[in-house]
Amino acid sequence: MQDGPAGAQPVYLVHVFCCTNERPATHWRGSCGERGGRELCDYMCRLGMALGARRIRINRAGCMNVCEHGPVMVVYPEAVWYKYETHADVDEIMRGHIIGGVRVERLVVSIDPATLHG
Amino acid sequence: MQDGPAGAQPVYLVHVFCCTNERPATHWRGSCGERGGRELCDYMCRLGMALGARRIRINRAGCMNVCEHGPVMVVYPEAVWYKYETHADVDEIMRGHIIGGVRVERLVVSIDPATLHG
Repeated sequence: MQDGPAGAQPVYLVHVFCCTNERPATHWRGSCGERGGRELCDYMCRLGMALGARRIRINRAGCMNVCEHGPVMVVYPEAVWYKYETHADVDEIMRGHIIGGVRVERLVVSIDPATLHG
Repeated sequence: MQDGPAGAQPVYLVHVFCCTNERPATHWRGSCGERGGRELCDYMCRLGMALGARRIRINRAGCMNVCEHGPVMVVYPEAVWYKYETHADVDEIMRGHIIGGVRVERLVVSIDPATLHG
């Protein structure tokens, strides 16, 4: 892959996508939304807005096909995946990784690509 | 930022997020969804599924705050932004960049972070 134009800057220094996909509660794979992902994403968005950092973006996303680990988010461009279940988890990811640049190891999800749902 | 665990692989080699946010047609900023982004994203998702490549993922996303350029998508981990308006545009991005690894320059959107909506 080619490099971008000389001097081009990334739009977002940190771009977070939180899965908010919601399946019926009876679905065998479950879903991030059904496990609280939507409310947690909204909470994280509010934190991001309160921060006022335009180069950090928190976004909702559709199903990222790692439902078994959910609720999940992925942080780009580093491609770090987190599982988060509480506001305290979100606070820790925001403070530690998104702002502080230090990965929150206890919440990192290690996903083996070979196990992705086909 | 630390490196990941030794030998860790990214879950997705190419991870695409298409904005499908929809505002009322009268909104002064417009929206990607209102300009066809949702249908184009669904079309791209179907192409991705037909491809059967589990390490390539096409996702819907909420508003990425570059509405003036929409409909937009961003391709991670490279952080390349595209504006796309037709199925032919989607075909070209899929064939050229997502599968072929060669950026489709005519559709790349250059976004100056200084112009982001505050």
